[in-house]
This record gives sequence, C-alpha cells and structure tokens, in this order.
Amino acid sequence: MNREIKQKLARNWFKLLQDIICNDIEKLENNKIKFKPKIWNRTKIKDEGGGEFRILKDGKIFEKVGVNFSEVYGKFSNELKKNIPGASKDPNFWASGVSVVMHMKNPHIPALHFNTRFIYTTHGWFGGGMDITPCIKDHKEKKQVHNELRKMCDRHNKNYYKKYKKWCDEYFYLPHRKETRGIGGIFFDYKKDNWEKEFKFIRDLGITFKIIFNSTINKKYKKKWTRKEKELQYIKRGRYAEFNLLYDRGTKFGLQTGGNVEGILMSLPPIAKWN
Amino acid sequence: MNREIKQKLARNWFKLLQDIICNDIEKLENNKIKFKPKIWNRTKIKDEGGGEFRILKDGKIFEKVGVNFSEVYGKFSNELKKNIPGASKDPNFWASGVSVVMHMKNPHIPALHFNTRFIYTTHGWFGGGMDITPCIKDHKEKKQVHNELRKMCDRHNKNYYKKYKKWCDEYFYLPHRKETRGIGGIFFDYKKDNWEKEFKFIRDLGITFKIIFNSTINKKYKKKWTRKEKELQYIKRGRYAEFNLLYDRGTKFGLQTGGNVEGILMSLPPIAKWN
Repeated sequence: MNREIKQKLARNWFKLLQDIICNDIEKLENNKIKFKPKIWNRTKIKDEGGGEFRILKDGKIFEKVGVNFSEVYGKFSNELKKNIPGASKDPNFWASGVSVVMHMKNPHIPALHFNTRFIYTTHGWFGGGMDITPCIKDHKEKKQVHNELRKMCDRHNKNYYKKYKKWCDEYFYLPHRKETRGIGGIFFDYKKDNWEKEFKFIRDLGITFKIIFNSTINKKYKKKWTRKEKELQYIKRGRYAEFNLLYDRGTKFGLQTGGNVEGILMSLPPIAKWN
Repeated sequence: MNREIKQKLARNWFKLLQDIICNDIEKLENNKIKFKPKIWNRTKIKDEGGGEFRILKDGKIFEKVGVNFSEVYGKFSNELKKNIPGASKDPNFWASGVSVVMHMKNPHIPALHFNTRFIYTTHGWFGGGMDITPCIKDHKEKKQVHNELRKMCDRHNKNYYKKYKKWCDEYFYLPHRKETRGIGGIFFDYKKDNWEKEFKFIRDLGITFKIIFNSTINKKYKKKWTRKEKELQYIKRGRYAEFNLLYDRGTKFGLQTGGNVEGILMSLPPIAKWN
C-alpha cells in the first residue's frame, strides 16, 4: 500500500472517530449542550494543513472537554529535524491525529485522556495511548479500566499491555513531584512493523476508549460529591497543568510546529488551583 | 574583596530583604494574617544549602504571596554545567537569592514579581528584575511603575533602564500566544563588572520594589471589582502559569538543581482558569 493511501485511511479514521466521540459526549449531555467547532489552518500563505478542534464547556457531566482532529504537513524546522525519526536528512513531514481531554464536573469521575496519531517523515509510524487521572482513589475503577485495556491489547499481541502500560507510567510522570500524573493506562510510539496490523490496533484503541469513557461516566455521574472533594480535584488539575506545560511532548510538538494554540492547550483544565 | 565575603554580604542582604518585605505584607494585612515559613534543605545526606520560603494565603489584599530566600551550593549536573557561565570546567557553584510573587485578591491590582540573586561559579554575577502583570489596563499605573524604575536605574547608569526594560519585554514573552506576560519592568543577568556597584544596584532595586508594591497596593486595594473582572484575572493567571511552566529559566533551574518544589512553584497562582 502506498504512502498516500495509508495517510488517507488514517486521517479518515481519525476524523470519523472525532465525530463518534463528540456524538457520544453530546448524548451524555442529553443533547442540551453542543460542541463549538473551530476550523484552523497552520499557515495563511500556503497550504500546510490544519484541523478542527471542538470544545464543549459547562455541561452537566463535562466541565470542559476538547476533541481535536488535525492533519498537518510541511517542513520541520532545523531544531525539530534532529529530534524526529527519519527527518534528519529530509525535513518533509505529514502528521494526523485525534486527541481528547475530558475534565469532569464530578470529582469522582477521573479526567480522561486519549490520543492516536500517524506521522510520516521518510517512513510512517503510529503513536498514542489513553490514561486516566482520578483525584479520589477508586481501586475497582482502576482495575476495570486496566482490564479493558489489557483485553484489547491481548487481541493484538500478548506483549503489548505490559510494555505499553510501563511506557505510560514512565511517560506521565512528574519528576519534580515524584508522582505519576494519574493511575496509568497505555502509551506507545514508533509503531511501524506492519501497517495493517498497527492500524487495526489504533482503531481498536479508539473504540475501546469510547467504551471506557461511556461506562466510567455512566457508573458515577449521579454520585454526590463534597466541596472538599471538588477542591481535591482543583489541586489535582494543577498537577495536570504542570505536567502538560513542563513535560508533555505533544504540547511541545504542537507549539513548535505552529499548531493552533487553543487546540493544543485545550488539554488545560478549566479551573486549577495551587496550594 | 574575596569570594567568601561577597557571598556573605549578598546572602545577608537577601535574607534581610525577605524580612523587610514579609513585614510590609503583614502590615498591609493589618497583622491579622501571618506568613507560614518553611525551612528546607537541598539534600538530606550532605550540606548543600537550602532556604526558607514563606507563603501567606487568603488575606484581604493578598490571595497568595510567596517570599523565598535560598542559599544553595554543590556541583552542577553535566547537563547544567554546559549552560551556566563559568561552569563548563568546574561544576562547583554557589547561589543565593530572594524572590517574591504576589497574586492579589483585587483584580485591579496587578500581580507583582521581584527577584534578585547572586550566583558564583568560577566567577560571580548578579541577576534579577521586577515586573508587573495587570489583567485590567491602567495606563497611569504603568507609567508610574516604569517611572520609578527609570529613576532608580538612572541613579546607577543612564543606559540601564532602556537596556533592562527591553530585556524584560523579551524575556517575559509567550511566543505561542504572541503576547507579553505583563506590561514589563526590568530584567537583567550576568551583572559582574564592578562588584560594589552591582551590589548597590541590587539593594536599590530591592528597596524600590518595596516602595512600588506598597504604593501600588495602597492606591487600589479599596477599589470595587465585578465578577467579570475577577474572571479576567483568572484567565490572565492561566497565562502566568503557562509562562512559568513553559519558559521560565528560574523555574527550570530550580527544578533541575533539586530546589524545594513548593518554593519554586509558589509563583503559580492560587486559582487559574483556561477558556
């Protein structure tokens, strides 16, 4: 399969998944509140792609949720060239992906993050993952989410779950706090062995995320919370902002490649607090 | 004058200034609320210095204010060695400083930041500055603060103000937003020409900061504000957090040299919002 077809199939999936996820979210909100979409272009002068980010705020369930789709291309800066696989000699790149960050009103429901992407320099690879960030411990929920992810991974390769769970724990870590951002999930990058198989895995993760967020929310959205629990959530979100601004590679990549700032920083919580 | 004496004089001044500033702040709060001090050590095993940070929260004027003093020493990591002047061949360093970040309750009063430091590797230099971050435009206030700073700079060198104001504008800049953090002030680094003169300038800046924050606050603390103005402040503070976590060198330096995390991140606002 040639490069163009792979890129088309990947971007079409990401776009479709954006619709599927947004549709589910609006349904959870009983269609009483809708996403605000914004289409953006990377540059004004020439065609270097862009994307569409959608934000929904102040819902009954979602305090803020962003669902981003992007398809960008062009040439990496000299700085980035050195750090991106396959780009050192040829700076041309193409990248597409879909990413979701959900900040919940109810502090019993964890913040949820999901992202899958396909990047092409002189060769192509998939990356992404999903992870959850509760502010109140819930051992049962943690087990359920990890079980879902393990089952999904096992359908593709018996080694994936262990490997990608470890990668997630190592990636979403705040060294200055000596604490993880959340309670993990899976994270992976540079997946490029067999395109058809990798793409199947990527789609399966998208659907698994859809299942996980619906079931996690449905189990808990009616649960009462206290002022103290809400405060815990604000503090946890401060840590979330610290991670995303200090360490997150996706944030850096986006800002360095002239991505849409509102879209990139949609991951930041609506309200955060620091002690 | 030898190195040890310079270091002692500098750290004694920074410590004294911490007391002066905290005293003024508590007076502004009518002594009804007090700083909580915390003494910390850089390492537990050997003596590598430490410091004392003081935080006051939920006052009538100050929503959160941190006043940090630190005196740290030891060896730079290989990573840092390369980037710090005079450390490439000899990793030993000594650094002391005082820094202040004020987040106000009243959105009419700007957030205020001040820092002065003395660093010694194979040679020593001063750095620092002060700048203000309003969320509501006040042309008169901007002029007054810049006039104070110009007058102070001119007492030492007629070229300082222009140079340091530019440095400040360039430093406190969010490239991804294409906006400055605030409305400037002065910023400088690697000041090492004449120790006595530099030290005099450093002390003068400390006293000027004391004068500026007292007068800025006294002019405005009784001024009424609306819910909308408070929201503007929360959004502006989101930008403040973005700058400090994405770009601030002091934050990076502190986290990389094993400084006290609470102390370093005391600059983060008590509550911030993102749209």
